[in-house]
Amino acid sequence: MKLKAKRINFETGNTKDVIINVKDAAELGQKAGDRVVIKKIKSKSINNKSRVAILQISYSDTIVARGEIGIFVDTIKDIEDNSIVSVKPIDPPDSFKFIQKKTRGEKLTSEEINRIISDAVSGHLSKIELASFITSAKINEMDHEEMTALTLAEARSGEIFYFGMDAYDKHSTGGVPGNKVSLIIVPIVAAAGLTIPKTSTRAITSPSGTADSMEVLAPVAFNSEELKEIVSKEKACIVWGGALDISPADNVLIEIERPLHMDPVGLMIPSILTKKLSMGVKKLVLDIPVGGGTKFPTPDDGKNFAYIFKEIARNVGIEAECALTLAHQPIGHCIGPAIEAKEALTLLRDYSAGPNSLIEKSTSLAGILLEMGGKAEKGKGQNLAKEILKSGKAYEKMKQIIEIQGGDPNILPDDIKLGPYEKEFKATKEGHITEVNNAIINQIAKAAGCPNSKTSGVEIYKKQGARIKEDDLIFKIYSNSPSKLKRAEKIYKSTGGPIILGGMMIERI
Amino acid sequence: MKLKAKRINFETGNTKDVIINVKDAAELGQKAGDRVVIKKIKSKSINNKSRVAILQISYSDTIVARGEIGIFVDTIKDIEDNSIVSVKPIDPPDSFKFIQKKTRGEKLTSEEINRIISDAVSGHLSKIELASFITSAKINEMDHEEMTALTLAEARSGEIFYFGMDAYDKHSTGGVPGNKVSLIIVPIVAAAGLTIPKTSTRAITSPSGTADSMEVLAPVAFNSEELKEIVSKEKACIVWGGALDISPADNVLIEIERPLHMDPVGLMIPSILTKKLSMGVKKLVLDIPVGGGTKFPTPDDGKNFAYIFKEIARNVGIEAECALTLAHQPIGHCIGPAIEAKEALTLLRDYSAGPNSLIEKSTSLAGILLEMGGKAEKGKGQNLAKEILKSGKAYEKMKQIIEIQGGDPNILPDDIKLGPYEKEFKATKEGHITEVNNAIINQIAKAAGCPNSKTSGVEIYKKQGARIKEDDLIFKIYSNSPSKLKRAEKIYKSTGGPIILGGMMIERI
Repeated sequence: MKLKAKRINFETGNTKDVIINVKDAAELGQKAGDRVVIKKIKSKSINNKSRVAILQISYSDTIVARGEIGIFVDTIKDIEDNSIVSVKPIDPPDSFKFIQKKTRGEKLTSEEINRIISDAVSGHLSKIELASFITSAKINEMDHEEMTALTLAEARSGEIFYFGMDAYDKHSTGGVPGNKVSLIIVPIVAAAGLTIPKTSTRAITSPSGTADSMEVLAPVAFNSEELKEIVSKEKACIVWGGALDISPADNVLIEIERPLHMDPVGLMIPSILTKKLSMGVKKLVLDIPVGGGTKFPTPDDGKNFAYIFKEIARNVGIEAECALTLAHQPIGHCIGPAIEAKEALTLLRDYSAGPNSLIEKSTSLAGILLEMGGKAEKGKGQNLAKEILKSGKAYEKMKQIIEIQGGDPNILPDDIKLGPYEKEFKATKEGHITEVNNAIINQIAKAAGCPNSKTSGVEIYKKQGARIKEDDLIFKIYSNSPSKLKRAEKIYKSTGGPIILGGMMIERI
Repeated sequence: MKLKAKRINFETGNTKDVIINVKDAAELGQKAGDRVVIKKIKSKSINNKSRVAILQISYSDTIVARGEIGIFVDTIKDIEDNSIVSVKPIDPPDSFKFIQKKTRGEKLTSEEINRIISDAVSGHLSKIELASFITSAKINEMDHEEMTALTLAEARSGEIFYFGMDAYDKHSTGGVPGNKVSLIIVPIVAAAGLTIPKTSTRAITSPSGTADSMEVLAPVAFNSEELKEIVSKEKACIVWGGALDISPADNVLIEIERPLHMDPVGLMIPSILTKKLSMGVKKLVLDIPVGGGTKFPTPDDGKNFAYIFKEIARNVGIEAECALTLAHQPIGHCIGPAIEAKEALTLLRDYSAGPNSLIEKSTSLAGILLEMGGKAEKGKGQNLAKEILKSGKAYEKMKQIIEIQGGDPNILPDDIKLGPYEKEFKATKEGHITEVNNAIINQIAKAAGCPNSKTSGVEIYKKQGARIKEDDLIFKIYSNSPSKLKRAEKIYKSTGGPIILGGMMIERI
């Protein structure tokens, strides 16, 4: 069937879709979700390739009339309005058979995994087919060979950097609020002379990702050439991975995993490692927070994951060390894009400002990298990391990173604006803090506007174990809007707040 | 967030979607595929309900500008252009947790299955969530209690008919071409005085469904009131189930199962039974074709299925008998909507016209229903069915059905037009037919235009075991278009045709 192209400016959240009129679909014998191959006819372009698309159906002529084919501009760039396009039904690709194989519980070969990944990226596999693959991979699990093959296949789907020397990196499996340690670790490690091209994500379900906080200090979105220049000059960066073409396959899978709330080990490990592989990383420290609210409820869960992770990393040429860390309360006192940048910058400028939890976690992870890089003897890495932080060398390095990424290197913590709408909460009685609830903190910070509003966030003045007097300031909410502040306050009140003040038990004994 | 409605005239093949501008999505903190609750503000309607929708994202202002919300007309009828709609993010419904439970391999309660089904129909569950459910149900299977609950939940999702007396029905699990037996069985059973309100499907992957063939004789799409009148008058009908609101939940699941090529027993049995339950069926004969090309490669597969089917049927109050039938070659000689109607009408008018395979299969299945309904003693049902067919009473009943459905009761086989483009194939040597290949027949019939073109189809003059002389007519293709006829011919030639002529072996002995 030959149809006239009509370009359409929106995204379906789907892979490569085209829209045809319901009557043309009936004539083709096709339904919504079926697969066709489309090709521009009489094109002068030498790149005039056939491509596969998934059908959507228009029931009226308003969007796509009979004889027309709607082309989404975000997925197909080189078919102009009114060009003539041939449309033919085709069978699902072989990779669909490999998905069915995984559904049946059979092991996939490397070649089969490669085909699934390349068809996922090209749009030959539909969203629901990928949802079926992810569900099958979760239930039937992926073995070590499959995870290794998947890591390599995902990396090959995009650009792979090499910065002229072994690169180091730090990653966290997540689940603990206020985890701005990358903003401390990267400058420490780079100040010691190691290359650390840190890519990070924006927040997806949390109040702030490293990229969101770093963006308060400097731009984080760079293309491939800009990145190469930054890293070749400063041996470090803190950028948003989403702006680069690294492992697009991983992004395609994550787009399905996220709404399914599925993050099976068999896909999570390749997802982490493929991004590192793409950045030329050879040595990696993995922070594995364990406990409620994280991916690993018990230390044993974390340990088992660590063993598998180290093996798959080794298989793809990355030496990995894993650190199980506590996740019972936030790192430091601040949660939110700007307030976390402010807390990190304060510590980089003045070691004595603390907070202690941020110093301890950052330097212990940085120390492992320093040991792996031969900068410190085994067991002495954390001390070296603390020295570098104390000495101001980490701060100097951070200023260089901020400057080369286009920020103001002389930015001071006080320059970072919060709110402007604020609400303080004080203790109504004496006692001890017995619990700081991460989930409620996240809820309040997000209600206040995080991560979309950078100046929104929360500050925790008293953490677990602290002794409290009546009227002590214990919690503060910042927001960019009065109505969001109200919503955040409402959550504070309805949940009783994230900070649990114990009774007089200790005093009574 | 408050947005202005903009109605959009097409279907995404998805559940209930709305489109918002990418900038509004960022402000809401939502991504494509996320779930929101929408509500018309200041509506005078008393039915102004909140409803859940899945977000799509517009990247330009052409379709949905900032401040607008695109509403698909096929899913949401009562939000007018320019009405103001509030949009709020919400968490996935509880039913999503139940899907996750199935993914973990746990058994679902009836209440949990009810919630999944009602949220699937209302659009609260997205396509990829349903794909995950179906994949989980396939891998982790559904036990008898779950299948029973699913059958009942699906039936409750739509209208449930009661025609004033126990209804009878026949169903086939499919996979054999030319299976026009319902056009013979329904009038036989109804002529004997039993109520048989037959609903059937249009072809999905085959050249013709019962509804497609019946439509050559009379209209098949009726609403609920019309159906009640037809059945109350004639105690029978042969209609398209798709026009009725019976088990919409089943349709929602099938829309995902079809592109996934998944038809697990745990969903297939509820899918069959729920439609019967909705039509008030109390006694059912299930035709289970076994062999290559069917859902049951061996008779044992078919038998195992039959035992489970009978039990689930009993659980929902339906008495079912199952008949394993041969599927090695087509039933009768004709495949295609019009040509099958013609073959059935010819037999109804003249028993001696045959074909024998159609007589035997139709009367054996009809006979089981006559025995179940007390119209014949055990073992005598088929004889009675043959008598009714021979006597012309079945033909008289069929004329009444055709008439009440709005067709011409006096239609003759010769009135049914085929083609007009035709191509005959003759034997090039002597021999015996050793095989008739169903898959190739289906391919050719579909290439010729079936089921969309009713006059397209194929006719098989010689079947397995027939003795052939050179130049005997063995196969004919009908098509509504010269180019489709060419395509069908090409398949005939490239595959060597569906009819395998053995060597001279028998003659030589």
